[in-house]
Amino acid sequence: MSTNNKASPNKSHCHFIIFGATGNLVSEKLLPALYELDATGQLEPALRFVAFARREMSTAQWVESMQEMLAKKLPQPPAPAILEQLCARFDYVAGDYTSPAAYAEIKTLLGRTGDNCDSTVFYLAIPPNDFHEVITQLHNAGFSGVDNRHRIVVEKPFGEDIDSARRLNTHLHKYFSEEQIYRIDHYLGKETVQNLLVFRFANTLIEPIWNRNYIDHVQITVAENHGIEGRAGYYDHAGALRDMLQNHMMQLLSVVAMEPPAILDADALRDEKVKVLRSIRPIPKRGVNNFAFRAQYAAGHIDRAAVPAYSAEDGVAENSTTETFVAAKFYIDNWRWSGVPFYLRTGKRLAHKMSQISICFRHPPKQLFRETPVENLDPNWAILSLQPHEAMHLELHTKQPGLGMDIRTTKLVASYRKENEKGSDAYETLLLDIMEGDRSLFIRFDEVEWSWRVVDPILRHWSLDTEFIHTYPAGSWGPDEAARLFDSESHTWRNHL
Amino acid sequence: MSTNNKASPNKSHCHFIIFGATGNLVSEKLLPALYELDATGQLEPALRFVAFARREMSTAQWVESMQEMLAKKLPQPPAPAILEQLCARFDYVAGDYTSPAAYAEIKTLLGRTGDNCDSTVFYLAIPPNDFHEVITQLHNAGFSGVDNRHRIVVEKPFGEDIDSARRLNTHLHKYFSEEQIYRIDHYLGKETVQNLLVFRFANTLIEPIWNRNYIDHVQITVAENHGIEGRAGYYDHAGALRDMLQNHMMQLLSVVAMEPPAILDADALRDEKVKVLRSIRPIPKRGVNNFAFRAQYAAGHIDRAAVPAYSAEDGVAENSTTETFVAAKFYIDNWRWSGVPFYLRTGKRLAHKMSQISICFRHPPKQLFRETPVENLDPNWAILSLQPHEAMHLELHTKQPGLGMDIRTTKLVASYRKENEKGSDAYETLLLDIMEGDRSLFIRFDEVEWSWRVVDPILRHWSLDTEFIHTYPAGSWGPDEAARLFDSESHTWRNHL
Repeated sequence: MSTNNKASPNKSHCHFIIFGATGNLVSEKLLPALYELDATGQLEPALRFVAFARREMSTAQWVESMQEMLAKKLPQPPAPAILEQLCARFDYVAGDYTSPAAYAEIKTLLGRTGDNCDSTVFYLAIPPNDFHEVITQLHNAGFSGVDNRHRIVVEKPFGEDIDSARRLNTHLHKYFSEEQIYRIDHYLGKETVQNLLVFRFANTLIEPIWNRNYIDHVQITVAENHGIEGRAGYYDHAGALRDMLQNHMMQLLSVVAMEPPAILDADALRDEKVKVLRSIRPIPKRGVNNFAFRAQYAAGHIDRAAVPAYSAEDGVAENSTTETFVAAKFYIDNWRWSGVPFYLRTGKRLAHKMSQISICFRHPPKQLFRETPVENLDPNWAILSLQPHEAMHLELHTKQPGLGMDIRTTKLVASYRKENEKGSDAYETLLLDIMEGDRSLFIRFDEVEWSWRVVDPILRHWSLDTEFIHTYPAGSWGPDEAARLFDSESHTWRNHL
Repeated sequence: MSTNNKASPNKSHCHFIIFGATGNLVSEKLLPALYELDATGQLEPALRFVAFARREMSTAQWVESMQEMLAKKLPQPPAPAILEQLCARFDYVAGDYTSPAAYAEIKTLLGRTGDNCDSTVFYLAIPPNDFHEVITQLHNAGFSGVDNRHRIVVEKPFGEDIDSARRLNTHLHKYFSEEQIYRIDHYLGKETVQNLLVFRFANTLIEPIWNRNYIDHVQITVAENHGIEGRAGYYDHAGALRDMLQNHMMQLLSVVAMEPPAILDADALRDEKVKVLRSIRPIPKRGVNNFAFRAQYAAGHIDRAAVPAYSAEDGVAENSTTETFVAAKFYIDNWRWSGVPFYLRTGKRLAHKMSQISICFRHPPKQLFRETPVENLDPNWAILSLQPHEAMHLELHTKQPGLGMDIRTTKLVASYRKENEKGSDAYETLLLDIMEGDRSLFIRFDEVEWSWRVVDPILRHWSLDTEFIHTYPAGSWGPDEAARLFDSESHTWRNHL
């Protein structure tokens, strides 16, 4: 999120090495984003890519598979000229991440074009188990250094608990300085998240009421209707808390709750987010069940089609108690938020795909309208929707037309984009920021560490009980028992925009 | 604005005597409103009307002309059954307002059906010059009394300055108690005005920012594109300040600015409105030109058709300096509004018909976005539109979709009515309130008096200069010189929704 105008960027030539080029993330996200960037002239003419993976194939074969992937993922058929231009930027290297030979081959490729290259980006789109080894190999091949010429991009998950995250970070820092490290949380690249900064800090209508005096509670929901999609190997070990809540959702919470930073730069933003995380009331060891709830999907229906239970998915361990649904409650014990519960909830195989931040305001004093039937009136809400549509909703009360003094809720809607207006995918934003060296939308280690600290008591508590987990039918909104987290009888999950 | 549900009103039978039945107000407003009320079952079966005017005609002739007027004014052709039902409620009495015989005839008519009649309403839709005489005659005919059985409705203008208003009020009070007097300002019957109460006091999102800390200034505009439409006899004497600003616009200002009343009843509301009027900083005798501006339309074009200058209209005095445009600035020197200018502006033959309350918020601190081109960003606005559409707009800033951090204004719009949803005309609300004895939306004399006090220095100052008045071409937004009222160079008239 550079604050510069990206139409005239001050980019340096660089090489971009993609580790795990044949993986899901590359076909789903990186390649479409690179195509869009190239199509809109955002990639330097001299920029070159190396796709690196274990699978044996030639660069020609890689290019062919790249073309197939793009044809499948892009909303329109790719333009031949752009496709050709992008493909010509690629070399493919097959090899084992542990084999120095592969790194030597990369080095040779870079050397061929490399003297006018200011920096090289190493993008680790690989399973977390391979992080350590690749980092060591990069160092051995002479790619680390402290001159900041190289950047290393680490995809989530950054560790699987606080200890492993610290170990990974220590290892990274052996060879790379903090300025070289780009820890991705692609939620921060989403436009709605960036828009939240504008919404909060560029509007006189909003910031004055964004605090405990006027906000009753906050809900952050990331609901998916798909299942684990063949990723049991990773997911059954991770679970929803590690996969979504500790990273993406804690980031959303931080941006919703943070104080205005001094300026929109990387460290000022991250300083404020860390302050939020550090202000979260620690979950007491003996009261975890009052703050967190886990569940797993049973068989059910999604879009009227029967889908199997999590426990019946290929590759899931027998009797797995891995959660596919997690709800948690956090209190931010600072001046702005004291007493305001933040309810976070995410799950797979829920009723539909929906990500949103829902701000529920306190009821106004009601004496004025006490003779009108407003007892059951909903409070005011501000909804920032990320999925399925990027939009902003305000729910206000207005008088119902007619002769009485009846009140109803009116929705003021601002679709975030005008018709036919193209936004940019999170990965477009993030890839460009990496090339430009703007780290605002990447995660500093203290953020990772404090996030792990916040959820650590939950993980520990759950690890003690490997026998029982609540279930919910696929296609539902999760178990009713999750409501035990609510502070007030008037709180309910908001399952609609 | 009864806070009861009007679907099951507790109405008493009554007679309704309309003075000035052949006048504009009756054909334009009262008859269509009565038709709608009858069509929706809001009129008691026993309710009867007497149409009273100077013009000689029979009840049958009156009914015929009534049918013509309704056919012309109603949006759809009237339903024959409803029309018949309404017409059957009417008697017509021809006579001079000064002639006791006419009042005797009315009395006879009432006596014929009258014993089960709890109250009689006398609606004075007549020129203000006739008020005194009619009031006296009503008393002489035995229609006043202090048992509250009778109600008297007085249309604007209530006086032409503070002294004449007091005289009229004293005269009224000789024969009628305050509880019997309904001073109409039909703006208070408009749904948008009532909605303003809901908007302000039923929304946590609004009330906390509705004060000098967050509001930069307020504009209230009532722009008309028509001219004086043959009413020179009245208008050339009155002018825009007396015709619109002293009554309708001061009422709008009061409702925008008032503190929350203890409850939504007649006196609590009016107490708060009077507090606003009493808090308005008196305009200093020697500085009137800094607070008020008048002008008169010259020839010009409305909807591309040439229209004459005011001075060329039939019946306008030669060298008249009557204002057809007035702009004024007021400060409300209380805790909520100190330092916030309220700009009021109304005129005839302006560019288009538009009535709205525009709230301009202060700029947020800008340091966050100082590297982005936001210097020229508009502030946040809240717009409550009365004409041509009843709607509510909020203008917020959002991030422009795309890779940069550019900001733009997004409008959140709530049309006050859903498609095909019928609201009620101001006169429907007010007529029903009169029948039900609800005076919330009528004006108490202290409101009238304080309004006249506020504008009195302007009237006096203008009366000293009968030589010069600014002009503006018909079809424009008034003279540029009106901008001299602005406190700040950043203030400009808002001429759009």
